[in-house]
Amino acid sequence: MPERRIILPGAKMPTAWYNIMADMPTPPAPYLHPATREPLTPDALTPIFPMSLIEQEVSTQRWVDMPGDVVEALRQYRTTPLLRALRLEKALGTPARIYYKYEGQSPTGSHKSNTAIAQAYYNKQAGIKRLATETGAGQWGSALSLACNWFGMDCTVYMVKVSFHQKPYRKTMMRMWGAEVFASPSDKTHAGRDILAKDPESLGSLGVAISEAVEDAATHDDTNYSLGSVLNHVLMHQTIIGLECIEQFDMVGEYPDVIVGCCGGGSNFGGLVFPFLGQKLRGEAKKDTRYIGVEPAACPTLTRGQYRFDYGDVAQTTPLVLMYTLGHNFMPAGIHAGGLRYHGMSALISQFVKEGRIEASAYPQNPVFQAADLFAKAEGLIPAPESAHAVKGAIDEALKAKETGEEKVILIGLSGHGFLDLGAYENYLDGKLVDFALPEDELCRALGELPEIDLKM
Amino acid sequence: MPERRIILPGAKMPTAWYNIMADMPTPPAPYLHPATREPLTPDALTPIFPMSLIEQEVSTQRWVDMPGDVVEALRQYRTTPLLRALRLEKALGTPARIYYKYEGQSPTGSHKSNTAIAQAYYNKQAGIKRLATETGAGQWGSALSLACNWFGMDCTVYMVKVSFHQKPYRKTMMRMWGAEVFASPSDKTHAGRDILAKDPESLGSLGVAISEAVEDAATHDDTNYSLGSVLNHVLMHQTIIGLECIEQFDMVGEYPDVIVGCCGGGSNFGGLVFPFLGQKLRGEAKKDTRYIGVEPAACPTLTRGQYRFDYGDVAQTTPLVLMYTLGHNFMPAGIHAGGLRYHGMSALISQFVKEGRIEASAYPQNPVFQAADLFAKAEGLIPAPESAHAVKGAIDEALKAKETGEEKVILIGLSGHGFLDLGAYENYLDGKLVDFALPEDELCRALGELPEIDLKM
Repeated sequence: MPERRIILPGAKMPTAWYNIMADMPTPPAPYLHPATREPLTPDALTPIFPMSLIEQEVSTQRWVDMPGDVVEALRQYRTTPLLRALRLEKALGTPARIYYKYEGQSPTGSHKSNTAIAQAYYNKQAGIKRLATETGAGQWGSALSLACNWFGMDCTVYMVKVSFHQKPYRKTMMRMWGAEVFASPSDKTHAGRDILAKDPESLGSLGVAISEAVEDAATHDDTNYSLGSVLNHVLMHQTIIGLECIEQFDMVGEYPDVIVGCCGGGSNFGGLVFPFLGQKLRGEAKKDTRYIGVEPAACPTLTRGQYRFDYGDVAQTTPLVLMYTLGHNFMPAGIHAGGLRYHGMSALISQFVKEGRIEASAYPQNPVFQAADLFAKAEGLIPAPESAHAVKGAIDEALKAKETGEEKVILIGLSGHGFLDLGAYENYLDGKLVDFALPEDELCRALGELPEIDLKM
Repeated sequence: MPERRIILPGAKMPTAWYNIMADMPTPPAPYLHPATREPLTPDALTPIFPMSLIEQEVSTQRWVDMPGDVVEALRQYRTTPLLRALRLEKALGTPARIYYKYEGQSPTGSHKSNTAIAQAYYNKQAGIKRLATETGAGQWGSALSLACNWFGMDCTVYMVKVSFHQKPYRKTMMRMWGAEVFASPSDKTHAGRDILAKDPESLGSLGVAISEAVEDAATHDDTNYSLGSVLNHVLMHQTIIGLECIEQFDMVGEYPDVIVGCCGGGSNFGGLVFPFLGQKLRGEAKKDTRYIGVEPAACPTLTRGQYRFDYGDVAQTTPLVLMYTLGHNFMPAGIHAGGLRYHGMSALISQFVKEGRIEASAYPQNPVFQAADLFAKAEGLIPAPESAHAVKGAIDEALKAKETGEEKVILIGLSGHGFLDLGAYENYLDGKLVDFALPEDELCRALGELPEIDLKM
């Protein structure tokens, strides 16, 4: 019988992050200042980030050592298991060998703790007393709440309103770890009040919640801002996922032909893929692996967005980033995968997609939940709705392998569990899930509001 | 830095259960037939159990090999980690070294899968098509649903009504794994209809739900009954918890001075403690370890019940068992630790308590949740309300060690996570939890209805 659970001994947990910027054939475009639209200087970010993280954001050093306190905190729940999906393979009748890297065993139930711990640590070192952040489905907010608690800091979370109401227990969780949580748009910030004035019934979005958290941080000296995805340093903190995977595959003499992850801002996907992609860029990879980012059809940034400079938030307070975007004013439908409701995308992942090194696909809610249902019956684990996108993408790959008879190795990034998303599954089982599609005119409207920027690159 | 996570390699997972009946100085009293009150013959149980499990129930063989299919299914989530609670120790300022064995990483979120898999397997082998069972908080029902799904059987769950409404997502989970779930008392059985006729607003209890499930099994040829706790074979299936613990402590050169677990029917507690207690009974233990079962003050079976023969269910359909009991008609208050709302207790654990080999204590809800709150802040993991009782008991032991300056080693049985119990935590945070106490007259009333049996033992 092949090994079902591949466990990397704790003593072998990676203690340095991998920075893919060291290996990119073309360096990423600079961020632009939101007002001047000139390349951003590090100083511009000091009101909201500690210098250590600003340096990581632009670093081209290949390996960045984790501080000892970060290693120690990560060891609370890491290493995480790589599992062989033997029952799923059987249920599909595929010759493919399917593996999944499961990040749901962290106390907060997803991969988000990996960067939350690092960010809380560096901010604490910089003398910061409080972190402000946004959260979609609540995974990131939970992770930062716990990390702040561990490092003795306060935490304020602006939680996208639709998720705040869909997932009330995420709020409870954040409260347990000592955070204060506001439904966004809130009346706590100018940005929130502006949105509420225009639309008192606004469902909120990550773009709005980011504006609120950034404003909170920028207007309080003892407070910094913390972002759960998108930024280069966040993706770097997540590379521990892929680095562990490489060692785990070595333990069983395998290597993935295809890696499938869900893509919202890109942190789970980048964290899983970059260590493998880095091997390929350096000519050290064992296979010509494909990487597939899966997103919701209701928020299809990579598959239907444009590659251009855009703001990270609705209030246009963040730097302009060259990325795939649906437009910073884009308001996605209230799908259950709240963590994937973001108009933009990591600049690094966007560039790799633009260069043809990473593929993308998009699915509506029902096929995604159907895949998760099959996965839960076979493997027992109930995926988070976000992670369910990866499961759907992987099942499609496994079914293609069944047609062609290929024994390919498929790796799924199972970024979190769905214990706090069972309301969504209840809707699915009752046939009440809506397959939101994004009408072309709505897409064009949001994109039509974007600034025209010619960087002469 | 001491090791935080002690992981037993998968290849070292125990593949035989430990049967403490082989080592008991006094053999347990026989079960009595509910009608004749004569010692039960194995035949009497065949309408609801397969012979393989009936044999395990009375076996005195010390080690019972796990079937290969059971080992394989257990490997989906085992081994489970033993964690050192370094942050909790620091928060308490105790010289004690606190460890917790965490069973919440199973797909169903608790230790219950350990026996669900075994029971589903043996019933499948016996040609059974469907299992009927009761569930309190839903952990056991979830576990049996998944196990039945894995072994290709149907599953019917009678879920105690108060939990059915408190924890709706547990029902969703069971539905996902293909089970049908009824709130108990239901109109599906005579037993349920009788209760509803007397009290249409009945909250239900495990004793009622058991009556319904047993009736369902007894009246359908292709259906057996499955119990999630109390019985000897169930506790034996759970010994994998303690067996793993012993090896994990060996890995770090430790041995517990005190083991604390929550006690409802006794399966998690017995599974954790029996391998250690067995060492002591055989004179092979490294220390004179104390074992403490913690129960809710609202359902204080071991601390305020009587040691006598009683039925396992309200309808008096189960055998009479010599155990601590509050009376089979006892209706516990609707506390959040639904898994601990049982009037009786494992005969084996009851006997060890009677013999003074195991201690017991009881706490009301608020101190239990307060302990869980402290634990969650320190260790990140949010305990199930049942497991929180063990945490409370352990913290009290750690604080005693602080007073005396003893460096004792405390082991907590953390039987499950609280992701599906966050509603209870929300109530706790909002100061809305009620500390149900059990009035003396109510206790006497339920006990006064018990049969007088003189077994001349």
